[in-house]
Amino acid sequence: MKLELTEIAARLEGLEETIIAKLIDRAQFRENSIIYQPGRSGFKNARRKSLFALRLFFQETMDARFGRFQVPEERPFNKNLPAPHRKVHLPPCGLQLDDYDQVNLTAEIRASYLRLLPALCRAGDDGQYGSSVEHDVYALQALARRIHYGAMYVAECKFQEESDTYRSLLATADKKALLDKLTRKEVEEKILRRIAEKVRAFQVKANPAVRILVEPEVLTAYYQSTIIPLTKEGEVRYLLKRGRK
Amino acid sequence: MKLELTEIAARLEGLEETIIAKLIDRAQFRENSIIYQPGRSGFKNARRKSLFALRLFFQETMDARFGRFQVPEERPFNKNLPAPHRKVHLPPCGLQLDDYDQVNLTAEIRASYLRLLPALCRAGDDGQYGSSVEHDVYALQALARRIHYGAMYVAECKFQEESDTYRSLLATADKKALLDKLTRKEVEEKILRRIAEKVRAFQVKANPAVRILVEPEVLTAYYQSTIIPLTKEGEVRYLLKRGRK
Repeated sequence: MKLELTEIAARLEGLEETIIAKLIDRAQFRENSIIYQPGRSGFKNARRKSLFALRLFFQETMDARFGRFQVPEERPFNKNLPAPHRKVHLPPCGLQLDDYDQVNLTAEIRASYLRLLPALCRAGDDGQYGSSVEHDVYALQALARRIHYGAMYVAECKFQEESDTYRSLLATADKKALLDKLTRKEVEEKILRRIAEKVRAFQVKANPAVRILVEPEVLTAYYQSTIIPLTKEGEVRYLLKRGRK
Repeated sequence: MKLELTEIAARLEGLEETIIAKLIDRAQFRENSIIYQPGRSGFKNARRKSLFALRLFFQETMDARFGRFQVPEERPFNKNLPAPHRKVHLPPCGLQLDDYDQVNLTAEIRASYLRLLPALCRAGDDGQYGSSVEHDVYALQALARRIHYGAMYVAECKFQEESDTYRSLLATADKKALLDKLTRKEVEEKILRRIAEKVRAFQVKANPAVRILVEPEVLTAYYQSTIIPLTKEGEVRYLLKRGRK
């Protein structure tokens, strides 16, 4: 099955709005660091988990029943999730991977998101714990979708376009050379400019008296330091696990 | 406890971004009418519910455990939800109501949302059922929050500002006269203009090749025909149920 890079890039571009909206929504609440501390959730029988970890687990348990993780780019942050309660009919995706969790970057995504929070949110505690973890989870899911989609589909597509080159790079398993080959600096710069423009446009009619505004630089820096590199890291993992067909 | 109308109006304004973003996100998927049909969910042991109804129920079951419905403006669409698994500490809210579900407009909100869908989404079926119901639920929750917040807090605030006038209107239980008294035409027109501007601003940097664009008129019409009238209907209900203190 032939994949088209322009279509994949278009899908990635279309996911930007969702990531931006969800991160801006999270920024409406304070950092609320207590929600990330194990044993402080207030839940009975959950002494070792944070409120954030509990919310992510319950959300993914529900999502698993609805079949979310049957979709290649929807990789779960948790293990031991229930089987789907419904049949999900998916069109052929064209990926060459036995198990999509071979390219599961959720541990890295979660860690990078938690590092982002002090820049995204105002410091302090506003007591809005439930809303904060709810928005954390939606933001994480939007990020994971974008990163895994890019990792798997972009890598497969590039492999299809230059199979011989990639086969020889893979034969040496030279990760650095693979990363260089996968990098397109001018595309990355275009993405960063577009993110900044979208963050500005989203907030141009927002009233600063009632909405917390997010500086475009916070999100472009996160794309540059994290979203784009993690996507490429996923591309490398995909190619290393991919069959050599 | 004294409520300030400017603060309440500000909160309502701040909720607009979330409503707009979530409705635009839903519009990225086709109408997918099968997801609203009972017995077509594909879930085992759920013959009488639609996929949409199941998702809303599972979401609210999870949210109830996290304590969402302890918050006055978070009214559930379902009954028989579990008790919270954690203690939620809420500041005094200033509302004079024994049971917030006396102003529960979720049946009306759900019905109006389902009527909106043919205008919001492109017709047809894209197979993206899981994503569609997920976004339905987020949009419904954002709508319900705005409508119930406006209904309860705006009504309480107006009562506090003109207690004698409202007491005599309530003595006659003249719903029409109450509605007239609660209506501020110039505020409603300002909201509609602002919604149109925000919908445009949100999408000005979106690429029509990769994002479905939503006409501002679709959302202003929904605010005008539904969100504003339901909020006022809720204000009337609040005042009728409110103590006469």
